[in-house]
Amino acid sequence: MLRVILVEPEGEYNVGFIARLCKNFCVDELYIVNPKCDLKESLKFSAKGYDILNNAIIVNNFDDAIKGLSIKIATSSIADYEGDILRKSIKSWEINDIISKADKVGLIFGRESVGLTREEISKCDFLLHIPANPEYPVLNLSHAVGIVLYEIWKTKGKIRKKYVSY
Amino acid sequence: MLRVILVEPEGEYNVGFIARLCKNFCVDELYIVNPKCDLKESLKFSAKGYDILNNAIIVNNFDDAIKGLSIKIATSSIADYEGDILRKSIKSWEINDIISKADKVGLIFGRESVGLTREEISKCDFLLHIPANPEYPVLNLSHAVGIVLYEIWKTKGKIRKKYVSY
Ligand SMILES: Nc1ncnc2c1ncn2[C@@H]1O[C@H](CSCC[C@H](N)C(=O)O)[C@@H](O)[C@H]1O
Ligand SMILES: Nc1ncnc2c1ncn2[C@@H]1O[C@H](CSCC[C@H](N)C(=O)O)[C@@H](O)[C@H]1O
Ligand SMILES: Nc1ncnc2c1ncn2[C@@H]1O[C@H](CSCC[C@H](N)C(=O)O)[C@@H](O)[C@H]1O
Repeated sequence: MLRVILVEPEGEYNVGFIARLCKNFCVDELYIVNPKCDLKESLKFSAKGYDILNNAIIVNNFDDAIKGLSIKIATSSIADYEGDILRKSIKSWEINDIISKADKVGLIFGRESVGLTREEISKCDFLLHIPANPEYPVLNLSHAVGIVLYEIWKTKGKIRKKYVSY
Repeated sequence: MLRVILVEPEGEYNVGFIARLCKNFCVDELYIVNPKCDLKESLKFSAKGYDILNNAIIVNNFDDAIKGLSIKIATSSIADYEGDILRKSIKSWEINDIISKADKVGLIFGRESVGLTREEISKCDFLLHIPANPEYPVLNLSHAVGIVLYEIWKTKGKIRKKYVSY
């Protein structure tokens, strides 16, 4: 089971695009903590992810969103500063090794403006970082979501090969 | 040298996000064929890709955009229909094998509404497909761009690892 959690997202296009990505890559659940944008507007960007957004679970706080997960993976564009243990990260392509045996996986994405708080990160099991231009590794929120879901799908697709026809 | 080519893009947010992605993943050139949206609006979504968009090369037709490339890779959400030779595709994760020895690589992305025409695809050397949900493999334009650039960066980044620190 794969759950995507957005913490206080601010851009309606991002939330819509992420719902679409959840459909593209067969995510099971979308949780949104305390949305800071108009989700009705987001629907315009969701294409065939419309139902996923309509059925998204809106919660008031972070703890409610991570409840019941067997593995919690925070994400950040900032990682691996020396001497900061909280920022020790895994690379995006290492995720499949980590989730392969977990049954309830949560991927947690932060605010466009300020990312996740240190407190939120400290409640997670791993911090995932997508390597990019060292001078500007900060991806737009929905593009970060797309890349992580794609990495998971690559492996899942191989496993599922026997069952689906594509 | 890596060139991203957008053919008649329609959504200003997509063009802006793609300029940002070009900065995130160190793309050398952005070409836009006959844009169908307001590029001034796009700048709002480009973040630190602002200069890349400001310096994008706008051309009137497809042939001008692919001039001088040693390898031309079209992209499509539709691939591998039986009996359609034009749609025989490479998978996104195979791209690095194909471009490793080319010196001028072009990645070509189609219109949000109708993708690339068959004529455009026929002028390219490869058709790249990002596998996704077989029931809905159609990604939003800028998210498709992000995933392809990320795949290339993964390899390029590993090669460059000795020089940059991330
Ligand atoms: N390179 C990268 N690796 C992993 N996640 C990333 C990323 N770039 C952006 N994200 C995701 O996109 C969200 C919004 S970007 C947040 C940027 C903010 N200035 C900050 O200080 O963190 C992040 O919280 C993270 O979930
Ligand atoms: N989402 C995915 N992730 C990882 N590998 C995938 C994948 N989808 C397909 N593959 C790999 O790509 C191979 C070919 S894909 C399946 C056939 C395709 N429709 C065609 O006509 O060519 C599969 O055997 C599998 O190993
Ligand atoms: N799964 C996928 N693989 C590769 N490229 C994709 C993709 N999904 C979207 N794209 C890119 O995003 C562009 C816009 S999507 C175009 C969809 C259109 N309905 C069509 O019939 O093609 C495509 O032209 C392609 O460049």
